[in-house]
Amino acid sequence: MPQLRLALNQIDATVGDLAGNADAVVRRTRHAADRGAHFVAFPEMVLTGYPVEDLALRSSFVEASRAALHALAGRLAAEGLGDTPVLVGYLDRSDERHRYGLPAGSPEDAAAVLHRGEVVLTFAKHHLPNYGVFDEFRYFVPGDTMPVVRVAGVDIALAICEDLWQEGGRVPSARTVGAGLLVTVNASPYELNKDDTRLELVRKRAQEAGCTTAYVAMTGGQDELVYDGDSIVVDERGEVVARAAQFTEECLLVDLDLPAAPAEPPAGLADDGLRVEHVTLSAEPVAPYPRRYAGTVAGRLSDAEEMYTALVTGLRAYVAKNGFGSVLVGLSGGIDSSLVAAVACDALGAEHVYGVSMPSRYSSQHSRDDAAELARRTGLHLRSVPIGPMFDAYMASLGLTGLAEENLQSRLRGTLLMAVSNQEGPLVLAPGNKSELAVGYSTLYGDSVGAYGPIKDVYKSAVFRLAKWRNEVAAGRGEVPPIPENSIAKPPSAELRPDQVDTDSLPEYDVLDAILELYVDRDLGGAEIVARGYEPELVERVLRMVDAAEYKRRQYPPGTKISPKGFGKDRRLPITNRWRERV
Amino acid sequence: MPQLRLALNQIDATVGDLAGNADAVVRRTRHAADRGAHFVAFPEMVLTGYPVEDLALRSSFVEASRAALHALAGRLAAEGLGDTPVLVGYLDRSDERHRYGLPAGSPEDAAAVLHRGEVVLTFAKHHLPNYGVFDEFRYFVPGDTMPVVRVAGVDIALAICEDLWQEGGRVPSARTVGAGLLVTVNASPYELNKDDTRLELVRKRAQEAGCTTAYVAMTGGQDELVYDGDSIVVDERGEVVARAAQFTEECLLVDLDLPAAPAEPPAGLADDGLRVEHVTLSAEPVAPYPRRYAGTVAGRLSDAEEMYTALVTGLRAYVAKNGFGSVLVGLSGGIDSSLVAAVACDALGAEHVYGVSMPSRYSSQHSRDDAAELARRTGLHLRSVPIGPMFDAYMASLGLTGLAEENLQSRLRGTLLMAVSNQEGPLVLAPGNKSELAVGYSTLYGDSVGAYGPIKDVYKSAVFRLAKWRNEVAAGRGEVPPIPENSIAKPPSAELRPDQVDTDSLPEYDVLDAILELYVDRDLGGAEIVARGYEPELVERVLRMVDAAEYKRRQYPPGTKISPKGFGKDRRLPITNRWRERV
Repeated sequence: MPQLRLALNQIDATVGDLAGNADAVVRRTRHAADRGAHFVAFPEMVLTGYPVEDLALRSSFVEASRAALHALAGRLAAEGLGDTPVLVGYLDRSDERHRYGLPAGSPEDAAAVLHRGEVVLTFAKHHLPNYGVFDEFRYFVPGDTMPVVRVAGVDIALAICEDLWQEGGRVPSARTVGAGLLVTVNASPYELNKDDTRLELVRKRAQEAGCTTAYVAMTGGQDELVYDGDSIVVDERGEVVARAAQFTEECLLVDLDLPAAPAEPPAGLADDGLRVEHVTLSAEPVAPYPRRYAGTVAGRLSDAEEMYTALVTGLRAYVAKNGFGSVLVGLSGGIDSSLVAAVACDALGAEHVYGVSMPSRYSSQHSRDDAAELARRTGLHLRSVPIGPMFDAYMASLGLTGLAEENLQSRLRGTLLMAVSNQEGPLVLAPGNKSELAVGYSTLYGDSVGAYGPIKDVYKSAVFRLAKWRNEVAAGRGEVPPIPENSIAKPPSAELRPDQVDTDSLPEYDVLDAILELYVDRDLGGAEIVARGYEPELVERVLRMVDAAEYKRRQYPPGTKISPKGFGKDRRLPITNRWRERV
Repeated sequence: MPQLRLALNQIDATVGDLAGNADAVVRRTRHAADRGAHFVAFPEMVLTGYPVEDLALRSSFVEASRAALHALAGRLAAEGLGDTPVLVGYLDRSDERHRYGLPAGSPEDAAAVLHRGEVVLTFAKHHLPNYGVFDEFRYFVPGDTMPVVRVAGVDIALAICEDLWQEGGRVPSARTVGAGLLVTVNASPYELNKDDTRLELVRKRAQEAGCTTAYVAMTGGQDELVYDGDSIVVDERGEVVARAAQFTEECLLVDLDLPAAPAEPPAGLADDGLRVEHVTLSAEPVAPYPRRYAGTVAGRLSDAEEMYTALVTGLRAYVAKNGFGSVLVGLSGGIDSSLVAAVACDALGAEHVYGVSMPSRYSSQHSRDDAAELARRTGLHLRSVPIGPMFDAYMASLGLTGLAEENLQSRLRGTLLMAVSNQEGPLVLAPGNKSELAVGYSTLYGDSVGAYGPIKDVYKSAVFRLAKWRNEVAAGRGEVPPIPENSIAKPPSAELRPDQVDTDSLPEYDVLDAILELYVDRDLGGAEIVARGYEPELVERVLRMVDAAEYKRRQYPPGTKISPKGFGKDRRLPITNRWRERV
């Protein structure tokens, strides 16, 4: 059987940075070519970053992407890398096709094979995702070809991301055209446990395709999305041949023994009417290399480590790609801001993390102590600015009471953080968790202030789990656990009035989070939630709070999505909404 | 020719308020039936409100909509209105069909004919809009029938909104089935000059359908969208028979002489494979009524009046439908907050509008005078709370300079407004205009604070036009012009440092707005804008400012859309974005 050395480049890309992304492709191609790779693949839309959202509708950007692709082909050849075929995702347009609602010349989520200075084959994603965070019917026309490229005597069928997730189209077509290998390029956003789903999917599709199947994944972060890597190669029986680690950039190299291509190249139509486009780059099998890359299979992260690493990755990407060098966190001594600070220290280094303690007359001594202890353990910079004078100035002018007085304290802190940020430059992080955001247990323009909300998709019960897990990891490594035990152990409180605790206003977090998960993430109605054994009055109260907080969520900063349904593009509810669930 | 008395009920609906919307349908049907109408039509999804966004994905809501439709049919009959066929839009689901990406049982944007206590015919929108503010491929499966109902011996073909805007489908099918009348139900969001486009469209489609065509429109507002009414009836030659006013609820009644239906009802397939569904409710022509409704043709509003009325309608709807009774505006004496206050007074009555003047050391005497003059002219409630003490408290703790000091003043005012809102209940309005939002000339959590931004889609040059127009209208009516002339005449300034004016940082607004309109609304690239005669350096600077302000816009409150592309669901750009337009 012919041998093929495949290089899957699991890398990060930055939206809009055509030059920087092209540089990465060249650098990584050289790395792979130096190691004798016959075919080098990069993730979906690696040249433009993903998702580009409405940039896809701006023709100047589409044309720049096309030009960058051709320049990249030339540059690879000029740098002596032209003989190695490179599969690279980019943004294209179609002059020939157009679909309902999109004008002629509509954009395509495309990929191209570059070889000897030329763009030898291009194709567009056939299945377009249009659910959850995806709006691809808004942007793209679907591809209608079945691309196959012959390399070293092996026919490689090509596909893009959703082509693998949906039934039909290019997966069965790979079998129909007799491909020896199916390579799919992907930018599939992280969700908890998606790696398990993904592995099962790739195994199933490889069996349907009847050939070895390689899945090259993106890693890194873009606004609310994180890509967890996890590139995979499985054989035609669905057995794992190689698997990359999660959340890392790497080149997964593997030597494959693959069926020789048929003498007569495939042509005509494949499944679902896809038109076969076949290009032969090299028909002769290569001599097997002396040193063989058998393929490594990286271990999986535990659930807690996976979630935590996603939060670190998302925050690091947001800060770096937006040109910031440091972050600022208001430290209350509570578990939310402590976890955010720990994530920030892991993402950026403690020397780039600034904390401000902003005590009021209602702040307990343990709050101040716990914030100081967090700083001592992690090494982040801490200062303390009491808000008493500002509070007194407002109270003297306005004489506030009750909720207005509580919210005032939170907003004085928000204003203080923004003032420090404006004066000194760090990016402010909002410490809100998903439970708070869901029920509106936060102050708009107060604790919701920030450019990024690192834990906005983490329920409070998971906040506790992650804090404990992070401390255990540190202890296991012989390091100081970053989060003070008291911050984890004490009852959560906003400390905006004397002796306040969260359970004054909210049910216990384990019950609350269970109800929220059913309503927010799974879209169940009130009666369905009650049928699962929760108190009707409680369910009704929680659902009312969620509905009433929609206007707050609309103004909340972006933050890393880790669940199937975050409070971002994947949940789009009207603010003006009189629908109330019955229980 | 048979006569038919048609009633087009151009009404408002509230998203999620199934009971309230059904009440309106019953009340309006009685009004029409009392006047002898033979066929009564309501707008698209009038029973649920429109758009319901992700409520369409919640099965409890879909089932509630279906149940409400059947209850409505029964109630109409029980109240003696069963003999009049009623066409009403609602949310349904299809058990039989499903489309790619949507599971079986997927939702439909549907309409039904109710008659004698029964739902006698249902159908779903065939063409689904998925551009601009629309995401209908996310939600709905398309209808594949051609619904026709025979009433008083006339065959009435039925369609929903986008069915009229796209080529093919139900419009040519109306001709194919020999319909005597085509009735379309709509919820088409307002944009400046859309009424002209709409009239031309209806005239063209009537000629294609070969029959009299009636367009029943929604009015009112939902979050960022405003519906401007403008229901229209044109005959088969495209001549206007009747036209409702803009932005008003009304019942447009018109007597039509229409061709008799064929002896053999249409069946089989119509254009684009649509399956004909024909129901006969009454085959015998009615005797013409003694008093004839010839159909009124309401006049059009001028551009300025149309825009201003849209702003009033949008704000009024948001405040009322979210259960508020009053609003709060920070009054600087500048034109933006003055226009917002004037709009609020027109929307809610001056007695429900609260203004706060919040002078600082940099506030000019004319600012305080102009705010007081505005209050005097409009009758709104005004108080003054100087921010000096709060400013001094922060400066003593933090020692801020430059931009940090400027932003602090703005945020102190934001916090002050929110404190008054929390204490007393009014909803805060954000005074930012589209030019400011575009270039980021505003302070996050400062002047951007608010639940609603009434003029967020109005460029600064249009702010001046609307202020002048509103004053002229008042003068023409012999009323006091609401906006002080000095607020219109003086150079715009944020007054956050001594002698500051907007043109310190920004180009003149007429030039700025022209560039913004090309970039934001029309998605032109930098080179294309320069090719229209603007300075390359200026274009580059403006485009950089727009790109860099994306994170601010993401946290801005919702506000009324009046342009083809507002800063809402119709413009979706990544925050993390290194793409920079070349000039």
